[in-house]
Amino acid sequence: MSKIAPTNDRLLRALRREPVDATPVWLMRQAGRYLPEYRATRARAGSFLAMAKTPELACEVTLQPLARFDLDAAILFSDILTVPDAMGLGLYFVDGEGPKFERPIRSVADVDKLFVPDMAGELRYVMDAVSLIRKELDGRVPLIGFSGSPWTLACYMVEGGGSENYSKVKAMLLNEPAAMHRLLDITTDAVIAYLSAQRAAGAQVLQVFDTWGGVLAPHHYREFSLRYLSRIAQELPRGDGGDRTPLILFGKGNAPYLPELADSGAEALGVDWLISLEDARRCTAGKVALQGNLDPAMLYGSPDSIRNEVLRTLGSYARGGDGTHTGHVFNLGHGLSPDMDPEHVRVLVDAVHEFSAQHMFA
Amino acid sequence: MSKIAPTNDRLLRALRREPVDATPVWLMRQAGRYLPEYRATRARAGSFLAMAKTPELACEVTLQPLARFDLDAAILFSDILTVPDAMGLGLYFVDGEGPKFERPIRSVADVDKLFVPDMAGELRYVMDAVSLIRKELDGRVPLIGFSGSPWTLACYMVEGGGSENYSKVKAMLLNEPAAMHRLLDITTDAVIAYLSAQRAAGAQVLQVFDTWGGVLAPHHYREFSLRYLSRIAQELPRGDGGDRTPLILFGKGNAPYLPELADSGAEALGVDWLISLEDARRCTAGKVALQGNLDPAMLYGSPDSIRNEVLRTLGSYARGGDGTHTGHVFNLGHGLSPDMDPEHVRVLVDAVHEFSAQHMFA
Repeated sequence: MSKIAPTNDRLLRALRREPVDATPVWLMRQAGRYLPEYRATRARAGSFLAMAKTPELACEVTLQPLARFDLDAAILFSDILTVPDAMGLGLYFVDGEGPKFERPIRSVADVDKLFVPDMAGELRYVMDAVSLIRKELDGRVPLIGFSGSPWTLACYMVEGGGSENYSKVKAMLLNEPAAMHRLLDITTDAVIAYLSAQRAAGAQVLQVFDTWGGVLAPHHYREFSLRYLSRIAQELPRGDGGDRTPLILFGKGNAPYLPELADSGAEALGVDWLISLEDARRCTAGKVALQGNLDPAMLYGSPDSIRNEVLRTLGSYARGGDGTHTGHVFNLGHGLSPDMDPEHVRVLVDAVHEFSAQHMFA
Repeated sequence: MSKIAPTNDRLLRALRREPVDATPVWLMRQAGRYLPEYRATRARAGSFLAMAKTPELACEVTLQPLARFDLDAAILFSDILTVPDAMGLGLYFVDGEGPKFERPIRSVADVDKLFVPDMAGELRYVMDAVSLIRKELDGRVPLIGFSGSPWTLACYMVEGGGSENYSKVKAMLLNEPAAMHRLLDITTDAVIAYLSAQRAAGAQVLQVFDTWGGVLAPHHYREFSLRYLSRIAQELPRGDGGDRTPLILFGKGNAPYLPELADSGAEALGVDWLISLEDARRCTAGKVALQGNLDPAMLYGSPDSIRNEVLRTLGSYARGGDGTHTGHVFNLGHGLSPDMDPEHVRVLVDAVHEFSAQHMFA
């Protein structure tokens, strides 16, 4: 891992809760279909998976939003389901239907066949992409690596794809809790190995996406999602002191659990838009940095309304603590959508920097 | 409205927070596709809308689950979008895609054309169904009438159907807030008139479904959903004292707002499964009855696991207050799905009565 500090280290400073000149901003799915240049690369690649599995193409689309917008971080372009794919489930995509697995986990026998994949083998393409992106970034901004959370991966692994009501994975959780815990345990081992390998390849920040934790009742969330997020936060080797690689736990629907997540050992929590940052900061009591949390649909509003919502979000974070923006990473509460206007994204990114640099948020 | 008290008045007593011999239970979408007899009636009707708009058929499917299960209430079989349909938007259904409007609200000019429909005209079929169901029920259990909430109706009216990310209605909320408030105001007037007419026709309990309030950020929820729910709770005429017709405000994602909703004037709040009833009861401080909140996906579990989850839910409510089940109406946190097993529904209903009658939940 290169030891050269990035030129723009706002993100790393904010995640360490150190003062910054302006609030750093990056956006979930910033490399995505809303950009014409992304659609062009994807057309050239032939398929989404070919693009994700070819390091040069993954690097190309990772860098595209940075060429357009004044973003403070790059995030590895990859799929959330690379790990179960490498466990032998057979990831494929049907246009307009999202990801699917050829061999979903449907029985205790299926669970018993799971293994931690070789990070230098089947998943080598991910680490090659990380190294290449780091080289091409040349220290301009930090690079974020990521993984799906154990519970979120389990949802896809058991359902076999997206789901309306998570009937199969919830049935397994109820009827075969021991098997579900074995599935989550081995997946947690795999996620830790995966994030460690991304870090070794050059990732400077690591994020876990718990996209589907929020579909669980509180007692099930604590048993089947939070427990494994906490194990990652505790066990993931990531250095010490100022060299520590920050871990961000993002979760849709995680607002009720922020106090518990703040005690998990993670350096930062990513939150959706269903809680004010004022409340989120207050209930995490300065134990973690916070990332978020504009409703992505605000990008459908006019440029003036986007600026108003950015200002409101910055102000909300400031009010939840000491009145400063220290420890805040601006982001959306979820990812960008294909029908969003890139010019509105520019308005958002520039407004974050402008308002926070001028301390207009208080 | 008939003044004969129903034979089984557990629901009404629970909603008034009076002692009951066992916790009353009904289930959202209890008349629905998971029942073969419902599918047979629908096939006979030719279409969902024909079934909903023919009082005899609406009555028939309303009563079907009561013939099978020991439920403590009937709920009018109807569609959530009857009111905007009567406002001239042209409701229709495409198989497998859910409801759609031929003439959605897309401009300020469209908003200005909206009107409160005549309850004795276009919506007469709803009131006829209510009267007929009351007659056929003959006092066995109370009948619940319902409406969509203003914000939830607005989502469908502006989006023109279901939505992934509510881009159109959120864009209108941001770019045309005055028009959005006019839309919500007139829809609130219509909802109040609609619920009043159902009450006059014989509905003994009224529920408002705010299915999509939970997609809004807190400041938008308060401005565009809660404000209008509160107006309904304040302005809906529903009698006084022991004759008062209880109003239940159900909302997916309403957990963060329960303290505010408890002050709205509604007699009861329906909650989803993303908060424990213990926390819900504690934060509403005995101001309202609570309805809920088993994760509907628990019905995919085995009968034993369903019984365990029922017991846990009853116990959670008891722990949030004085240790009794007073003021609790058992329900799911959302509706039943077509692929659920009716025998599992029976296990649930019977477990609620068995455990609560024996005070096994404490």
